[in-house]
Amino acid sequence: MRRYVDLSPSQRCIMTPGPVEVDPRVLRAMSFPILGQFDPEFTCIMNETMEMLRELFSTDNRWAYPIDGTSRSGIEAAMVSLIAPGDRVLIPIYGRFGHLLHEIAERCGAEVFVIEKTWGSVFEPNEVIAAIERFTPDVVAIVHGETSTGRIQPLAEIGQACREMDVLLIVDAVATIGGVPVETDEWMLDAVIGGTQKCLSIPSGMAPITYNDRAEAKLLSRKQVERGLRTGQEYAESTKLSFIRSNYFDLSMLQDYWSSTRLNHHTEMTSMLYALREGLRLTLEEGFEARFARHILHEKALLAGLTAMGLKLYGDPDCKLTVVTCVLIPEGVDGESVRSMLLNRFGIEIASSFGPLKGLIWRIGTMGFSCRENNILRLLGAFEAVLIRHGLSLPCGYGVQAALDVYEANEYKRNQFPMV
Amino acid sequence: MRRYVDLSPSQRCIMTPGPVEVDPRVLRAMSFPILGQFDPEFTCIMNETMEMLRELFSTDNRWAYPIDGTSRSGIEAAMVSLIAPGDRVLIPIYGRFGHLLHEIAERCGAEVFVIEKTWGSVFEPNEVIAAIERFTPDVVAIVHGETSTGRIQPLAEIGQACREMDVLLIVDAVATIGGVPVETDEWMLDAVIGGTQKCLSIPSGMAPITYNDRAEAKLLSRKQVERGLRTGQEYAESTKLSFIRSNYFDLSMLQDYWSSTRLNHHTEMTSMLYALREGLRLTLEEGFEARFARHILHEKALLAGLTAMGLKLYGDPDCKLTVVTCVLIPEGVDGESVRSMLLNRFGIEIASSFGPLKGLIWRIGTMGFSCRENNILRLLGAFEAVLIRHGLSLPCGYGVQAALDVYEANEYKRNQFPMV
Repeated sequence: MRRYVDLSPSQRCIMTPGPVEVDPRVLRAMSFPILGQFDPEFTCIMNETMEMLRELFSTDNRWAYPIDGTSRSGIEAAMVSLIAPGDRVLIPIYGRFGHLLHEIAERCGAEVFVIEKTWGSVFEPNEVIAAIERFTPDVVAIVHGETSTGRIQPLAEIGQACREMDVLLIVDAVATIGGVPVETDEWMLDAVIGGTQKCLSIPSGMAPITYNDRAEAKLLSRKQVERGLRTGQEYAESTKLSFIRSNYFDLSMLQDYWSSTRLNHHTEMTSMLYALREGLRLTLEEGFEARFARHILHEKALLAGLTAMGLKLYGDPDCKLTVVTCVLIPEGVDGESVRSMLLNRFGIEIASSFGPLKGLIWRIGTMGFSCRENNILRLLGAFEAVLIRHGLSLPCGYGVQAALDVYEANEYKRNQFPMV
Repeated sequence: MRRYVDLSPSQRCIMTPGPVEVDPRVLRAMSFPILGQFDPEFTCIMNETMEMLRELFSTDNRWAYPIDGTSRSGIEAAMVSLIAPGDRVLIPIYGRFGHLLHEIAERCGAEVFVIEKTWGSVFEPNEVIAAIERFTPDVVAIVHGETSTGRIQPLAEIGQACREMDVLLIVDAVATIGGVPVETDEWMLDAVIGGTQKCLSIPSGMAPITYNDRAEAKLLSRKQVERGLRTGQEYAESTKLSFIRSNYFDLSMLQDYWSSTRLNHHTEMTSMLYALREGLRLTLEEGFEARFARHILHEKALLAGLTAMGLKLYGDPDCKLTVVTCVLIPEGVDGESVRSMLLNRFGIEIASSFGPLKGLIWRIGTMGFSCRENNILRLLGAFEAVLIRHGLSLPCGYGVQAALDVYEANEYKRNQFPMV
């Protein structure tokens, strides 16, 4: 039998759009001994986590809890529970993760209608509203922040239109939650899915979601049908009906598990829940205003540095997502070779991209715990060195100096933030 | 805004059939800083984990990797990927988790055939084989170890019969993997799902699975159909076809992510994978023979203690599952009150049961890291005290003494095991 050595992962500076670095306090939380899933101490932690999630999503919704899986498990749970086979679903697509929503909606058996926007931009709200009027969908599913293109889609007007036309609106806020405002109630979003491994800086493994009474009503109507599935005869009849196709992702069962009835479903992920609770605690302790301002400040410093180095940014600046910066790879430079050198020599990770943007842009994340001054300065210095090593002639030292200028000009403001 | 205090979970002695206590070395592994999901160091950890899982499942299968969710996510992934709508599926049920397989198979759109055995016993292999001949299913799904009743179902003859009749056999080994032998290849099991939070003593959050070429062939046939889903017209035609209804649980996509092509799917759960790798490393280090013998020894001591206290066991002893012991609640005793006192005064958790057994039995787990001498002795002493406090007249001191007798008689053997 082969002997396996002890784990010893290297220390990385992770400047991708997720997963990003994790606050040591969150890592520590995962090392606490576990509790049983029905231990009153544990169910108390579950309830506290729900309270904190309501704050995170800016909602008074009763239901706000994590799905036990990675971010896309939350998306699938919301979609498979809220989209019945045959439902009409509109997906406005402006990047890779819109295509994922399309793919999942198809697997739910929906009749899918798609509108597409050139990557690098987002929809005018009126374009989406016109499509809703044209296709009269039961459900609209849309991405809030596209990490593939680094763009953010305004949602307030779309939310209001969906409410007026009685359409359910499902929002993928995986990339934005905890980094930029997500106003569930104010924007009238019916179901919202967040991610842990991005702006919340918790390891991948849970997907916080919230949904309102309108969404719950649809769940419960499907639950009633599903209950009838007992005999072969009933089953044969019910295949035409709209029962929820997944047990693991059935929100109508999950909410019973998260309610005071604690109806047994899965075995809750103890250590991941500890991490989620601690990550939420740190987020609420910092405060949304300070946290969003911190993300804006470090983005500003990064942009100043990249621009001073003579690099060009990708995409429409009017809809740039604060927490992801897409940089055009200069002509003649091998983007993957630059990334490898950054990782192997400097211990810094940045991302490539997908589909039509593969080989054309790098993506730099400034998210959560990774979004801090020393990381920005470290990245800019290393980036310059690696680009020079790849034959680019750059004005030496300008990148870091430009970022320092931003930080010094914002010294007073920065001191109001936690020292990160 | 409410202030939340720091996490501070109590130290518990967890003697349930899962989740159980976690080795501090596994908890420590989760506190390591994370790596990016495509960092070569991380993909190396993914590959090592696959190697270890093959050993765990006693298989030469190419595919052995975790599903990112709790144990039932692994069951659903195997079933939704291997059961096409309309497939004939036979489920032999002898406890609660057989009903779960039934429920999931129905949601997959299968035509389900069920045979049931009185709880507390298991099937004679011939009973299952006769049902296979009668119902001619495409798939048989069965539980290996039923934690609800504490029974274990022999699988070798059923496996051979399925192979001969070209039926796919899916096995839920959530409760047995790492605690009693699971011989994937020798027993001819086509797909096996393990659990982390039981005999492997890793926190809930991943579901290791393995499947062979026969299972993969079925996946790939369904994958080809799914690829055609591009236009509305193709979609309308394909609803009759057998595409996999889930994106998150589509094993044909997951195996691409776990292969050297690393086709992006979800963002792998970094910290949970660290925990899984460390838990597997400790399991392989102890060795299967020593580990299974350890579980048998502590079960023996527990049974000696309980019997000496005058308590009666539930179920057919011939098919008792080593790692779960079901105890009949003595007449006139409030089982839930006993459990509460054990937890609140002594910090020890044991389990109640489900459905027809609710209020009739307690279930005591002796699994993984929880399965050690000091835990058994602690439980027996506390159990006696709590039962006396509940008005039962017991022969004082006999339980612990009987367990000590077992340990002393096995001293030589015990010293060959790690000191747990």
